[in-house]
Amino acid sequence: MRDIGVGVIGTGFMGKAHSFAYRAVAGIFPGSLRPVLQSVADINGDAAEQAAKQFGFRRWRTDWQALVDDPDIEVVSITAPNTVHREMALAALAAGKHVHCEKPIAPNADAAKDMMEAAEAAGVVTQVGYNYIKNPILKLARSMIAAGELGEITGFRGIHAEDYMADPEAPYNWRVDASGGAGAIADLGSHIIGMARFLLGPISHVDADLETVVKSRPIRAGASERRAVEVDDIARLTVRFERGCRGTIEANWVATGRKMLLGFELTGAKGSLAYTQERLNELLHYRTSGDPRHSGYTRIEAGPQHHPYGLFCVAPGHQLGFNDLKTIEVAEFLEAIAGGERRGPDFREAWEIQKIIDTAVRSSKVRAWQAIE
Amino acid sequence: MRDIGVGVIGTGFMGKAHSFAYRAVAGIFPGSLRPVLQSVADINGDAAEQAAKQFGFRRWRTDWQALVDDPDIEVVSITAPNTVHREMALAALAAGKHVHCEKPIAPNADAAKDMMEAAEAAGVVTQVGYNYIKNPILKLARSMIAAGELGEITGFRGIHAEDYMADPEAPYNWRVDASGGAGAIADLGSHIIGMARFLLGPISHVDADLETVVKSRPIRAGASERRAVEVDDIARLTVRFERGCRGTIEANWVATGRKMLLGFELTGAKGSLAYTQERLNELLHYRTSGDPRHSGYTRIEAGPQHHPYGLFCVAPGHQLGFNDLKTIEVAEFLEAIAGGERRGPDFREAWEIQKIIDTAVRSSKVRAWQAIE
Amino acid sequence: MRDIGVGVIGTGFMGKAHSFAYRAVAGIFPGSLRPVLQSVADINGDAAEQAAKQFGFRRWRTDWQALVDDPDIEVVSITAPNTVHREMALAALAAGKHVHCEKPIAPNADAAKDMMEAAEAAGVVTQVGYNYIKNPILKLARSMIAAGELGEITGFRGIHAEDYMADPEAPYNWRVDASGGAGAIADLGSHIIGMARFLLGPISHVDADLETVVKSRPIRAGASERRAVEVDDIARLTVRFERGCRGTIEANWVATGRKMLLGFELTGAKGSLAYTQERLNELLHYRTSGDPRHSGYTRIEAGPQHHPYGLFCVAPGHQLGFNDLKTIEVAEFLEAIAGGERRGPDFREAWEIQKIIDTAVRSSKVRAWQAIE
Amino acid sequence: MRDIGVGVIGTGFMGKAHSFAYRAVAGIFPGSLRPVLQSVADINGDAAEQAAKQFGFRRWRTDWQALVDDPDIEVVSITAPNTVHREMALAALAAGKHVHCEKPIAPNADAAKDMMEAAEAAGVVTQVGYNYIKNPILKLARSMIAAGELGEITGFRGIHAEDYMADPEAPYNWRVDASGGAGAIADLGSHIIGMARFLLGPISHVDADLETVVKSRPIRAGASERRAVEVDDIARLTVRFERGCRGTIEANWVATGRKMLLGFELTGAKGSLAYTQERLNELLHYRTSGDPRHSGYTRIEAGPQHHPYGLFCVAPGHQLGFNDLKTIEVAEFLEAIAGGERRGPDFREAWEIQKIIDTAVRSSKVRAWQAIE
Repeated sequence: MRDIGVGVIGTGFMGKAHSFAYRAVAGIFPGSLRPVLQSVADINGDAAEQAAKQFGFRRWRTDWQALVDDPDIEVVSITAPNTVHREMALAALAAGKHVHCEKPIAPNADAAKDMMEAAEAAGVVTQVGYNYIKNPILKLARSMIAAGELGEITGFRGIHAEDYMADPEAPYNWRVDASGGAGAIADLGSHIIGMARFLLGPISHVDADLETVVKSRPIRAGASERRAVEVDDIARLTVRFERGCRGTIEANWVATGRKMLLGFELTGAKGSLAYTQERLNELLHYRTSGDPRHSGYTRIEAGPQHHPYGLFCVAPGHQLGFNDLKTIEVAEFLEAIAGGERRGPDFREAWEIQKIIDTAVRSSKVRAWQAIE
Repeated sequence: MRDIGVGVIGTGFMGKAHSFAYRAVAGIFPGSLRPVLQSVADINGDAAEQAAKQFGFRRWRTDWQALVDDPDIEVVSITAPNTVHREMALAALAAGKHVHCEKPIAPNADAAKDMMEAAEAAGVVTQVGYNYIKNPILKLARSMIAAGELGEITGFRGIHAEDYMADPEAPYNWRVDASGGAGAIADLGSHIIGMARFLLGPISHVDADLETVVKSRPIRAGASERRAVEVDDIARLTVRFERGCRGTIEANWVATGRKMLLGFELTGAKGSLAYTQERLNELLHYRTSGDPRHSGYTRIEAGPQHHPYGLFCVAPGHQLGFNDLKTIEVAEFLEAIAGGERRGPDFREAWEIQKIIDTAVRSSKVRAWQAIE
Repeated sequence: MRDIGVGVIGTGFMGKAHSFAYRAVAGIFPGSLRPVLQSVADINGDAAEQAAKQFGFRRWRTDWQALVDDPDIEVVSITAPNTVHREMALAALAAGKHVHCEKPIAPNADAAKDMMEAAEAAGVVTQVGYNYIKNPILKLARSMIAAGELGEITGFRGIHAEDYMADPEAPYNWRVDASGGAGAIADLGSHIIGMARFLLGPISHVDADLETVVKSRPIRAGASERRAVEVDDIARLTVRFERGCRGTIEANWVATGRKMLLGFELTGAKGSLAYTQERLNELLHYRTSGDPRHSGYTRIEAGPQHHPYGLFCVAPGHQLGFNDLKTIEVAEFLEAIAGGERRGPDFREAWEIQKIIDTAVRSSKVRAWQAIE
Repeated sequence: MRDIGVGVIGTGFMGKAHSFAYRAVAGIFPGSLRPVLQSVADINGDAAEQAAKQFGFRRWRTDWQALVDDPDIEVVSITAPNTVHREMALAALAAGKHVHCEKPIAPNADAAKDMMEAAEAAGVVTQVGYNYIKNPILKLARSMIAAGELGEITGFRGIHAEDYMADPEAPYNWRVDASGGAGAIADLGSHIIGMARFLLGPISHVDADLETVVKSRPIRAGASERRAVEVDDIARLTVRFERGCRGTIEANWVATGRKMLLGFELTGAKGSLAYTQERLNELLHYRTSGDPRHSGYTRIEAGPQHHPYGLFCVAPGHQLGFNDLKTIEVAEFLEAIAGGERRGPDFREAWEIQKIIDTAVRSSKVRAWQAIE
């Protein structure tokens, strides 16, 4: 096991989650690389210093470029606001670093493509923070589909709905600023689009309806002045997969009451699966074979028989949480850096997802089906 | 309470259910009309005779026209195959009878319109078998929406999915014969479209994708010869409601594992509702007010506080079943005949639903949004 | 199919339910006896007249003895208050009638034994209103146990909890009057004890703790004067079954929030079952065999493969309700009268259940295990 | 924030979990102590070396006494087999160390008392591994009870059931060796007993029935020779709490199908709570107030409003897992060491729990109620 230097840019929600995962991973996964938390950067020096102390980084900086240039750092983790992902990632790639970037990596597919090409030219490993698909129970789902256990897939219904923008008085912020890209479809839709691809492969066509539910928002909390909102609060997609089946996908950040309705129902000729992130250690499975008196949906609970659950806990029923999924994400990233399988999602995959988002936006504007190109 | 003569055409699944409801209703509902089961008709005399005996009809017939003409009969219930609904209903209307017809009443909107016009010209009461919306817990849902308890409605996601056509070897039958109209969207979609209208009012536009998943079926069970299928197995609709909100609707009869996934999730600025017919005595309700430490979805269980549950059982928790919903349907039909409120769904409502189905079929063909006209 | 005259005593909750079932049964079950609702009795003449009219009885009476003596009546259904069950049943048996009596049939085992002996001497068929075990999904459960599909049974945990006596200001009434027998253990416990016996056979020993939670109640609604309560609000039993396994049973009518928590979890060496009446069309089933990656509890939904569900509805997923269970109870009673299998629960079974209740009361007093004798 | 040296004894399931928690805690909780993983001990040198490397300890040892004596170590974490907990803990206390010991700390109450007295004499902080009660959603439950939101508590039904000993061919091992103490009631029952005390306070009396379901087990996997089992596989307790309410508790390690059925249903005059560890981020809450048309159980989802969830994740719905609960346990332990509130459970609490276990064993033998002394 050799040490590998890590630098994290950003100290917010995801900065903390990444730091946690890099610190935890070597104790859970018996891999060949052990992260050393070298440096954390934040434009706010106090935040950077505090994060360095609390999360256990050796150094802190307000200048992210210096972190990128640090020769002790092989891995750059980017958790700063979405608008700066691109600039930071390109700089890190230019410096020959492996790059772990939060999603979305870019406001549109063209920008994502630039980043993907830079990454592939650099020959480094990239990882994008689509952690939900790292869930062992979803790996099981994917393997069942791939093995044909569900027969030919005949339909998919996916959703990612939360309610953090449901309050019409929630003020205007970067999330609803069109310069950062699309709205709910980028912020939440990217997760369920990625999950759909993870399970079923490429999407070829999309017919989308994007809706701005809250037409204007206070310019700041409590302000009477309001600013018009241009991005989507809800995106409703009908899609076709390259493999032949079709489905629907919804992204919704005004879904009052929902905190993490990220899930799907997926149907095949021989069986079906249903999942929701609200109960991330469970997978519902129906199969057509067997005694019809006993048939029904089986609630599979995650356990050590579903790798890598067993690395977290040898006993079934103990349950993984969100931060554990992030740890798996980091473990697989490090495994790829060490020369193992590249499971991604990498910048290429992020580009593929972004193309679907861009196409959906275009489809909604022209009110017609569009091919993903 | 006065007696009212009833004649039922058809002795199958729905013939039995209607007969049950007409026999049961007066004992449950203290209304002013008491059905007298005068006559049952079936083209198969043995079936008719057997049904008369078992269900308690005074007479049986093989000639449905004779039943329609019977002066002792004021109410004609039509449960024969869909293809003959129109002819029978027009005859019954011509004879001045109140008509209770199973859904769909017609293979297309033009035919439904004829029937609606005939009914309104006759001045009788019509009732169409959309029983699911008769559920007391859905009446609660509707009243909450109407009272503004959920705030402005911001989204709807409805589905009716079952799996009775999922097996590719299930033989070709009347359900998949295009001469009878559309496929899953007519057979199942009509229920969820009607439920959407019941809750949220008219739909103005639709963008649909209809798919034939099982491209051909054996001409009969076990046959090697197959016949091409033209109707939809899955219909995926994006819709706009006149009230301003939008949503999606799916109809699917190849949804392996699902026996009665008829339900919706409906979101408003102040609260949300979720429902599935799989648990028809429950309604999930979220509201934004209250102590945030305690907030969440409340599982409301049907009880006597939700009229007319209390007529079936004075104690909560005892649960209604499918046949009880049919009994409520009949009770409301009789109440309308007696001069009370006309709650429908009547032939006009069936026509409205059929227009949406026809428009969805057209939208799918032209691959574009269509207005409901 | 021959007619059989039925008389119902009582017009309340259960009077209505029985009348409904007798009226409905012949239309659902193709049996050999068709009930004719001859007479209904209630000490309140208006109630009797109204019930006769609404439920479709030919006559009504205020004198139940006259109903019992009516030669047109072969079946007497007793739904009057518990305190008069015994007198009425003995009179009906003396008159040679088949007796359908609501539970509990008697305030104690001695009285129940008299009734059982009278019934067996009379050679008629008796039926006691333990309707919940008539559920097709519980018939499935029983058959799985009997067939050994769960292996040797290793534990049982049963409960019947509701909250209709939870409010300390709910006034003193017949339910809490000790002259009528025990409290929650008689009113609710009898159901789960009967269900335990239905599934697993006789109980041999019991160790019980009975508790009066609400020590006194207003003598009438709103009264300031209170009357001490002597009967149990909660009964907690540890039991041994003759077959060797053990378990626990709780009866509780102060279980705030619960409307129908009647259910069990039952474990065997090869599998397990879990059930709650809150979702009476579902049974959870776990089995030890099969691929461990896919193992879990399967939610079996009631369907036509679970007899007699199919008589109510030919399609799965449509769900039975409480009144349907009552109809099955009546159907099986009539089948037994016609010479078919006597499935009970009959007066002997009611006596067996009452013995367990009496023994539990005694066990709680002496604070020790007691054998059922 | 000052550093504090930690030594962990044991490298198995709990050794890994403790190491994880000590490594993670400072990055999650902004406390005043930062653990430094000084040393790990295992009788197996390879295991110790491997653990040191993977979990990030500076040193490893095969001699646990040396670890205890290490002046760099202030906190000793004991995760070795149960039989050696006592010896190790007493040695660590003698060395003046704060002790974190896995449960059960001792095979019986007398031994636990010795340990408790030694701890209190030493004036150090002790912590016992009852991590489940560290769940933010259970802290909410406790605070609701304490604030009287549920009214007077009227009943408790608790259980901890799993199935890791359900297979009769699972070989004899230390778990079923009576020299280590009781069986399921010690291994699992201690969790639910501790949870009952956490929520409702002291238990005063117990009436227990302990059962050995699998009477003998193979002396090793696959062996034909079998050894008699003396300890309980299932323990069924009826209990009285000092506060006046009563309840039942079941511990069961042969509950086929159950992986983590640790939970309770708890009823009060004004409301109720239900919980299962199978869905550890949810709490069901019923209250008697409010509009009866909307009443029901509310599914509260853990979020940042439930401290310390927000330290793990600022957004709701993201879910904690088992290892996170362990991290909270360590955080609270460190907080107590730093002079903050001592939330326990400490050795005194472990002794209280063990007394209930011992009393239950005695009660089962004498088949009578026993007071906890």
